[in-house]
Amino acid sequence: MSPDEFRHWGREVVDWIADYMERVEAYPVAPSVEPGEIRAQLPAQPPEEGEPFDAILRDVNAILLPGVMHWQSPNFFGYFPCNNSGPSILGEMISAGLGVQGMLWATSPACTELETHVLDWLVELLDLPRHFKSDSLGGGVIQDSASSATLCAIVTARERATAGQSNQTGVVASLTAYATAQTHSSVEKGIRIAGLGSDNLRLVETDDQYRMRSDRLRQAIAADLAAGRKPCFVCATVGTTSTTAIDPLAEIGPICRQYDLWLHVDAALAGTAALCPEFRFIHEGLEWADSYCFNPHKWMFTNFDCDCFFVRDRAALTRALSVLPDYLRNKATESGKVIDYRDWQIPLGRRFRALKLWFVIRWFGAAGLKAMVREHVALAQHLARWVDSDPRFERMAPVPLNLVCFRHRGGDAATQQILDRVNGSGKAFLSHTRLRDRLALRMCIGQTHTQRRHVEAAWRLIAEAADDLHSDKPSGS
Amino acid sequence: MSPDEFRHWGREVVDWIADYMERVEAYPVAPSVEPGEIRAQLPAQPPEEGEPFDAILRDVNAILLPGVMHWQSPNFFGYFPCNNSGPSILGEMISAGLGVQGMLWATSPACTELETHVLDWLVELLDLPRHFKSDSLGGGVIQDSASSATLCAIVTARERATAGQSNQTGVVASLTAYATAQTHSSVEKGIRIAGLGSDNLRLVETDDQYRMRSDRLRQAIAADLAAGRKPCFVCATVGTTSTTAIDPLAEIGPICRQYDLWLHVDAALAGTAALCPEFRFIHEGLEWADSYCFNPHKWMFTNFDCDCFFVRDRAALTRALSVLPDYLRNKATESGKVIDYRDWQIPLGRRFRALKLWFVIRWFGAAGLKAMVREHVALAQHLARWVDSDPRFERMAPVPLNLVCFRHRGGDAATQQILDRVNGSGKAFLSHTRLRDRLALRMCIGQTHTQRRHVEAAWRLIAEAADDLHSDKPSGS
Repeated sequence: MSPDEFRHWGREVVDWIADYMERVEAYPVAPSVEPGEIRAQLPAQPPEEGEPFDAILRDVNAILLPGVMHWQSPNFFGYFPCNNSGPSILGEMISAGLGVQGMLWATSPACTELETHVLDWLVELLDLPRHFKSDSLGGGVIQDSASSATLCAIVTARERATAGQSNQTGVVASLTAYATAQTHSSVEKGIRIAGLGSDNLRLVETDDQYRMRSDRLRQAIAADLAAGRKPCFVCATVGTTSTTAIDPLAEIGPICRQYDLWLHVDAALAGTAALCPEFRFIHEGLEWADSYCFNPHKWMFTNFDCDCFFVRDRAALTRALSVLPDYLRNKATESGKVIDYRDWQIPLGRRFRALKLWFVIRWFGAAGLKAMVREHVALAQHLARWVDSDPRFERMAPVPLNLVCFRHRGGDAATQQILDRVNGSGKAFLSHTRLRDRLALRMCIGQTHTQRRHVEAAWRLIAEAADDLHSDKPSGS
Repeated sequence: MSPDEFRHWGREVVDWIADYMERVEAYPVAPSVEPGEIRAQLPAQPPEEGEPFDAILRDVNAILLPGVMHWQSPNFFGYFPCNNSGPSILGEMISAGLGVQGMLWATSPACTELETHVLDWLVELLDLPRHFKSDSLGGGVIQDSASSATLCAIVTARERATAGQSNQTGVVASLTAYATAQTHSSVEKGIRIAGLGSDNLRLVETDDQYRMRSDRLRQAIAADLAAGRKPCFVCATVGTTSTTAIDPLAEIGPICRQYDLWLHVDAALAGTAALCPEFRFIHEGLEWADSYCFNPHKWMFTNFDCDCFFVRDRAALTRALSVLPDYLRNKATESGKVIDYRDWQIPLGRRFRALKLWFVIRWFGAAGLKAMVREHVALAQHLARWVDSDPRFERMAPVPLNLVCFRHRGGDAATQQILDRVNGSGKAFLSHTRLRDRLALRMCIGQTHTQRRHVEAAWRLIAEAADDLHSDKPSGS
């Protein structure tokens, strides 16, 4: 494709994206397709000859679009958001156009230095501990996801606990780690991948608000020590996936320090709230953390993938992950003056992801980002009040930020019926979780373009679905 | 940013990319900046108020562009290529614009189904073993990199070898794995991350062409068995990083089968060559592999990240990597009729990466892709002949495909001087490796836009640098 052809089709695609932005609110949020329905429309064999670009774009519209969930719809309230925004897409475009591979500082100094710089900015913007800045012994790096960040933290913790002798003597078999049943599944996955074994992950009891009980954590560590095990890692969560519960870092931290456990803090969704001083309570005690991550690709309007991972001791991280073959040796690395981010992550290669994050921060400014976060939190607080004031519903968890969990008092079947009705309407999309063995609706207010009218309309849908629960009539949506 | 603002700035960015495509050949391939030079030009504090987009774009040009390596220059011959192409960038744009998150089939059926479909196409296009197709017990998935694919293979091999009891009894400490000193560093990294320990990775001797010696592999396995160890994993390479050596799969495979070892085949760069029937010799014996990966983001003109990872037994992979929390349960998953790719990879979330690969295959067609690969291989064969016919140079390895390794007969210092001179000129970029403890230049012909004139010009530069080696005159480039 020549530059001029790219210029032509690039404009078409930009218009396609702008049109999509304008129309997305009107699309049914969740697709209604059966397994295999999309594939059945695609030719079984790849084309031998090239095809014109407009044929490809036509198939995007005709075949793919009916089969996507519209995560960028302001009526999307499911899971946690996975937002984009105009400046973020433009940053991703330039990243794809430049096509640099930043595995080493030397393979694109600007790629590494902008990333370090923007992650230092985020320490300022979220008021994170200073030891996460690059002018300390720590620093930050962009990962694809909190799962990968957590895995890096676990592997580093394992190496620290075994003094780099992991698996020479079966010592890994003695290691134990700690989280809660509310902790994200990526922690169990990481524990498995790192060879610690799911059974060595202790699920510490939570309190009535789904927060880790620090007294139970202390007891679990003591019991493991008494049994000859070697506790090495704790994952605390700021904003759990089910309910955005906030584990008490200020209590957990001193315990980790006392027993020399690595404390990783996962704030994938909630971290962004710390843009606003009034929400910085979520990070109380974060100064105890050895590592921390949050995902701008969730609530900071930066498209997937973009997780920001900070460590207090970058040497510990790179000791765990660095392997330096001859073909990657270079003078800059040997000078010790540069960061080679390949040693901070699982993959070797990396694209220029800092661009989109830099674009987002500069376009919106701190003030613009704060205003959006504040609006989302305010809308969630409204929603919580509407739930509380409707006798048919029961709120299932506190709402510290922008997620409301609630159920119909009629039980799981009624709650499921409401979920199916709302999602089936295409007018909004919620997801669910189980809390104290009861089905709960999860409604997260955090999509880039969600405004009050979208939340109000979704709540009306939910209320109407509840109205119709015991009706024999066909549902009158 | 409103849709109309996006429309406006999107066109500017498309023009920026098209202009970059037109100009990239003229830029010095490698930047000449000092550590910290880019950061020093960026404001220490993030902006409180939003900034106009043209200010951001101006800084991309003024601050960042001088600090990037131009991987998309046709004069880029270093490392392995990390290519983009027009259709690939357009695919990445639509992926960013749609912003879907395909962790589950249910969270965007089209994202999953297109990926499965395109990976099945690749089985056809490369003539891979049929058990890698999704209608068998196996299948394919897009990973960010071969490093991550290899880690998934290692973890699956570990779980298979320990019957899922990894680390309950310290059994992981008994596991051993096999590769060669020429195997990519990601294998040692994966072995470490998975908790097997670097010391349990055996580096099997290679032959005089840097290929794994299968007799030595057999001996190493036998020795470990005799010592009570449990061999579990072999990584064979099709196209090693240093020299594109091709391990003898047809000899290695039966040994792995005999001893029940997982055979992973890493063809990150070279796999693409199998588009052309005349290069399919590289995959001879691939039918023995349990898993296989290659990177369209290297030589198939699809921008980073895009590694295609195939497994023979997808159930083994998902058993190793699946953790299913309540909030991700859904009817489609429970029906057993769909693929949830979150269980095929380290991260949970994933973007719509199949789009760019689909765009590339459709735009170029199989015929177009084959023609580009053939041209690159032919150019590399020309280069090898030029090297062979110049008495000052010594070729250091066979050239089965598109990488030529050679040195100046004057030794490491002379070779280094040539490398520095060529790279310092900005007119071409090579990288290096060490072979039999001697410095070798690596020149890989595989950038999307590299033509004969670029290879000729680079060879002239190299020859001139050799001319000037013993000259006292200032170099007359």
